[in-house]
Amino acid sequence: MARAWTLASRPNGMPTAANFALIDLDQPSLAEGEVRIANRWLTVDPYMRGRMNDVKSYTPPFAIGEPMQGGAVGEVIESRSDQFKPGNMVQHFAGWRDEAVLPAAQVQPLPKMEADPQAYLGQLGMPGMTAYFGLLHVAAAKEGDTVFVSAAAGAVGSTVVQIAKAKGCHVIGSAGGAEKCAWVQSLGADAAIDYKDGTPIVKSLGQAARNGIDVYFDNVGGDHLDAALAHANDRARFAICGMIDVYNSGAATELRYIARVIGARIRIQGFIVSDFADRAAEFYRDMGGWMKDGKLTREETVVEGLEKTPDAFLGLFSGDNKGKMLVKI
Amino acid sequence: MARAWTLASRPNGMPTAANFALIDLDQPSLAEGEVRIANRWLTVDPYMRGRMNDVKSYTPPFAIGEPMQGGAVGEVIESRSDQFKPGNMVQHFAGWRDEAVLPAAQVQPLPKMEADPQAYLGQLGMPGMTAYFGLLHVAAAKEGDTVFVSAAAGAVGSTVVQIAKAKGCHVIGSAGGAEKCAWVQSLGADAAIDYKDGTPIVKSLGQAARNGIDVYFDNVGGDHLDAALAHANDRARFAICGMIDVYNSGAATELRYIARVIGARIRIQGFIVSDFADRAAEFYRDMGGWMKDGKLTREETVVEGLEKTPDAFLGLFSGDNKGKMLVKI
Repeated sequence: MARAWTLASRPNGMPTAANFALIDLDQPSLAEGEVRIANRWLTVDPYMRGRMNDVKSYTPPFAIGEPMQGGAVGEVIESRSDQFKPGNMVQHFAGWRDEAVLPAAQVQPLPKMEADPQAYLGQLGMPGMTAYFGLLHVAAAKEGDTVFVSAAAGAVGSTVVQIAKAKGCHVIGSAGGAEKCAWVQSLGADAAIDYKDGTPIVKSLGQAARNGIDVYFDNVGGDHLDAALAHANDRARFAICGMIDVYNSGAATELRYIARVIGARIRIQGFIVSDFADRAAEFYRDMGGWMKDGKLTREETVVEGLEKTPDAFLGLFSGDNKGKMLVKI
Repeated sequence: MARAWTLASRPNGMPTAANFALIDLDQPSLAEGEVRIANRWLTVDPYMRGRMNDVKSYTPPFAIGEPMQGGAVGEVIESRSDQFKPGNMVQHFAGWRDEAVLPAAQVQPLPKMEADPQAYLGQLGMPGMTAYFGLLHVAAAKEGDTVFVSAAAGAVGSTVVQIAKAKGCHVIGSAGGAEKCAWVQSLGADAAIDYKDGTPIVKSLGQAARNGIDVYFDNVGGDHLDAALAHANDRARFAICGMIDVYNSGAATELRYIARVIGARIRIQGFIVSDFADRAAEFYRDMGGWMKDGKLTREETVVEGLEKTPDAFLGLFSGDNKGKMLVKI
């Protein structure tokens, strides 16, 4: 029997397991042009928190009682499409379930690269593209820039660190705890800031970035954003990818250094990765080259079993993951 | 006897008259290449508050006990330069005093336009250029955009309103009090928000901008900035010119809607007008055209006498001025 996670209720603040319900899914016979996929890997990502609210955003909210969506990699086990055969490994957006029935047009073959299939949910997928286009296009990072990236041990942040180093930047990453900080430095970061060590981030960043920062890649918001404003050099560029600090709290963000945008002519630009969907070829070309040159390291935090999907998701907000958080089925 | 205002002490928070001292100035005989100018008009502007602090910024701080600086228009009364003759009207940066002795290289003739000399300290000077380049280049406002401008009854804001209307934008301005709001609408604004009427600005702006805003021209910061974030359309552009709310308070800015920069892909860009100094010709060409077409109105709040210069300056922070605040000598 196929099963799927649904949103049982909308969270107020931090979500809990009670907001999710596992339901049995009908297993319809395939219509012409459809494929049946046994999902092998599911992704959970911080942006999904936004879809749990009933507000208009760039992706529609999850509907109560309906199967949730998200990236997934799986194996075709039945096909009424001439595009796919049983045994093909594919990716699609019908995650949060163990089996998906989809028209072939909503299913993509995996890119032909030398990588594990689950990599296309992480560094070689949406989080990787987010890092690549956010850093190089939105923030226009270039050789010699000092780049500060928050949540540098996360799926996006750890890829930002490595792309920035591949491009010849000086890189400072923040992460929670000494172990994650050591890992961020092992990825090539020139310095790592432990945001859980009790030192205000504005102070830690000042010590790590004696010459200021030229680029800030924001996954966190809040104190991290304020610290970046405090230490931004003239004409610094901020790519705002996420604000995990804000998603659950509902509290206002207090910025003591916001007025620095004027004198330092800071540019703050929000973005979402799907705006760059038509430029995926650039991403695969460059990432493929860096992989061959040994410049990319991938780390995964794997939770096993469909039943654990909400746990994996909730773990994102307590920083349980090093690298990409994945569910293996 | 020539006199000049000096900074007697640095303010902590809102400046007071006690921070200023009027001193007698030496009246040196002219060196070769110098001119002596009797100042007729002095400008006071919000940005000068930043120069009263002893912090590195885009303009150096005022020195304690030294004559302050700022824009001024005056008449040459003595010259040892072949560039200027007595009777020439000129502009320069040795304001906050009644008489200036300067090398000719630091003195500019007034532009040849049909305008009162003091206009070159306002709509046809630095505040006007700030409005022009901030609106059209930093925020890239274009025909059909809805433009929100804060402090729309000020020197910069009132010019933003008029340029935006000349460009075919829908314009919403904020100002303090019913009289100023009526004036902002008389300049062509489609709606005016009274930020002193007790309604939260986020609510007033929502009512005035049913279809959201595409451009925000910020002179104020704080609640105004947050309201603009709340109501920004996709790909809205914010030109951050000033944050008069922040200059004196030292308090953190609380932003409840900052995370909207992500989904709406908002661009927030700080700027200072001197970055556009080499493009002044564009400004004079367009402003000259709009003046001929009757599209520009100028309002001045004139304080008489050098003694009153600090009062004029302090009045900027209590909103005493409609249009450009000037000191007439």
